[in-house]
Amino acid sequence: MTFVTLVTHVTSLSSWLTLLRAPGLHAARLRPLLDRFGSADAILAAAPAALREYGAGAALVDWLQSQRGHSDPAIDAELRWLEHEAHHFVPLDSENYPPLLAEVSDAPVGLFVRGDPAVLSLPQLAIVGSRNPTAGGRDNATSFAAHLARRGLAITSGLAIGIDAAAHQGALAAEGITIAVCGTGLDVDYPSAHSALAAAIAQRGALVSEFPLGMPALQANFPRRNRIISGLALGTLVVEAALRSGSLITARLAAEQGREVFAIPGSIHNPLARGCHQLLRQGAQLVETGDDIFAELRALVGALAPALQAAVADDRKSSAAAPESSAADAPVLDKAYEILLDALGFEPAGVDTLVERTGFAADEVAAMLLILELDGRLESRPGGRYVRRVLKAAK
Amino acid sequence: MTFVTLVTHVTSLSSWLTLLRAPGLHAARLRPLLDRFGSADAILAAAPAALREYGAGAALVDWLQSQRGHSDPAIDAELRWLEHEAHHFVPLDSENYPPLLAEVSDAPVGLFVRGDPAVLSLPQLAIVGSRNPTAGGRDNATSFAAHLARRGLAITSGLAIGIDAAAHQGALAAEGITIAVCGTGLDVDYPSAHSALAAAIAQRGALVSEFPLGMPALQANFPRRNRIISGLALGTLVVEAALRSGSLITARLAAEQGREVFAIPGSIHNPLARGCHQLLRQGAQLVETGDDIFAELRALVGALAPALQAAVADDRKSSAAAPESSAADAPVLDKAYEILLDALGFEPAGVDTLVERTGFAADEVAAMLLILELDGRLESRPGGRYVRRVLKAAK
Repeated sequence: MTFVTLVTHVTSLSSWLTLLRAPGLHAARLRPLLDRFGSADAILAAAPAALREYGAGAALVDWLQSQRGHSDPAIDAELRWLEHEAHHFVPLDSENYPPLLAEVSDAPVGLFVRGDPAVLSLPQLAIVGSRNPTAGGRDNATSFAAHLARRGLAITSGLAIGIDAAAHQGALAAEGITIAVCGTGLDVDYPSAHSALAAAIAQRGALVSEFPLGMPALQANFPRRNRIISGLALGTLVVEAALRSGSLITARLAAEQGREVFAIPGSIHNPLARGCHQLLRQGAQLVETGDDIFAELRALVGALAPALQAAVADDRKSSAAAPESSAADAPVLDKAYEILLDALGFEPAGVDTLVERTGFAADEVAAMLLILELDGRLESRPGGRYVRRVLKAAK
Repeated sequence: MTFVTLVTHVTSLSSWLTLLRAPGLHAARLRPLLDRFGSADAILAAAPAALREYGAGAALVDWLQSQRGHSDPAIDAELRWLEHEAHHFVPLDSENYPPLLAEVSDAPVGLFVRGDPAVLSLPQLAIVGSRNPTAGGRDNATSFAAHLARRGLAITSGLAIGIDAAAHQGALAAEGITIAVCGTGLDVDYPSAHSALAAAIAQRGALVSEFPLGMPALQANFPRRNRIISGLALGTLVVEAALRSGSLITARLAAEQGREVFAIPGSIHNPLARGCHQLLRQGAQLVETGDDIFAELRALVGALAPALQAAVADDRKSSAAAPESSAADAPVLDKAYEILLDALGFEPAGVDTLVERTGFAADEVAAMLLILELDGRLESRPGGRYVRRVLKAAK
């Protein structure tokens, strides 16, 4: 990196860290400004009238004006923190910004990351629940997380004590990938009992937060944090939850974001089954095994990539037109999947590489990768990379 | 009863017991014949062409012909059994034939009853489940039955070991009314472990069967029996049930009959929760407390009496038309309920008496009585009789 590029990079990063602090700014409000002005720097330099024209309200415009030439020691501290090789900031316009989260209208302007930012774009299941679970609830969280991590899903949770920790630990025990969304600054050791767990998660996945460094554990921040947990994931599983608990907030946000909600039923004499039963009455999917979730997500992944579905349908049609072909019945791969597998080869490759090689869109590639994993045709590796599996019994 | 009346009665009863044996005959097929010919005797005496004209198939016509002047010792034995004061036969055209069961197209031609036939027309909840429940499942069956029996619902089940017995016992312990639907002849001591339970049920409710006396416990008869359990009841609660169990058949029949299905969730590690979870996935109501069922049945009772609903709506409209009236908002009784309460007084009276006094239809009266019970305005007494409650705090 030349000196000039480095300076530009740092300036841009500083602008992003400023935008992150803009009151009321989120993805849906930022995107038109970004489309118009092209960069965080340019938004900060834009004239008030131009900002207003692209949807910025008076309060935001005033605030942006007040930041001009303003130097914030907190941002300087964040820039120093970001010099560590495991520390990252992923702004909304980054290719590492997770595509599912980007669909959420109030998604964060950017994310601090400790660990590998690429894992944020992997297909994920969120697992949440009580801070004071029963032993059975804790076991369920661990075993569901382990089972689904082994089958290729990243497990996302909130690093809290109880069900959250059990879910992270289950994924780690299965040598899977797990993502912790924090309600504090990433430099804040909270909950302090989980320092070692946080370090392990940073090694095999990522910790993320939208909050500036130094943000303490404020009650008001946790519901905000929950929208990121549900927003990153294809679906949210609630393991054990009391009525009126934070886990039910996450489930509600998941439903509002159009994601799947799963709940594990329990004894009517277990107060921590009440929250799950309420969700089931509201239409959540009843889950008895990890494979119940797996089957559902398989269908979801398809629904998330309509362009891919159309391509597959076209391919089926042309196969059916050929009289000697039995492709409509035989368990052969659709053409798009064949292209992707060919592009993958047997050396680990990430989504970006595969996008380059195939010309498919990133979300389509991510969806196809999950389906191929579900079919046992490839394996995920740390760092959001994939590798083909050699099928033992060729058929 | 004069000698002539008695002879007529016995002849008619004998004809009904013959019709009960007619292969493939059920309520929907019998009703047009009964409407046309007026009695069981007349159907047995009718000409083949006339029978065919009212929907009787060739096999049924031939069978009816074969019974003319035929004397069956089994029917003679049933007539002797029916001489006992606690033994009854309730044919389809009897006022004691339960109105909810009569709505089921394949309802039985008639029912043998040991106990009080009038209880069959009371609002009922069916409670069914595994023959080998967990201790927790058994406790749930007992406590739900006791709670709901105390609130005025009769509890219907199948006299089997396990959940069925626990439900009957719960209702008896609460001094409520309980109904056992048997898959054998009522003179068959099955299951033999339940002789004392059966005697207690006959004292505080009824045992019923559509099967001729002497019918042993045949596997094939139990699914038939289950349609009577669900058909008698406003809804069916499944407490614990394995997949592919008889309880799920009862639940399916209840759903097909347009009745409510309730299921109690349980631990995902309890194999006997699987059946309940399957029902919940199929749309059964998730139940945590007896009051969940109570609230639902309250609405159901309303739905069962459309004429009553219309009357209530008319009454509301005319109240609203009077400008000084606040009847639409105040928790006052609707007119039809006031008429019924006035007709009831403080001496116990049955549905028939109230039908006579009010001129309302029997099913409307039954529905209104349940609603008044739910409101705590009257109490049910043994033998299908009701009595007004004195409201302590008049308001």
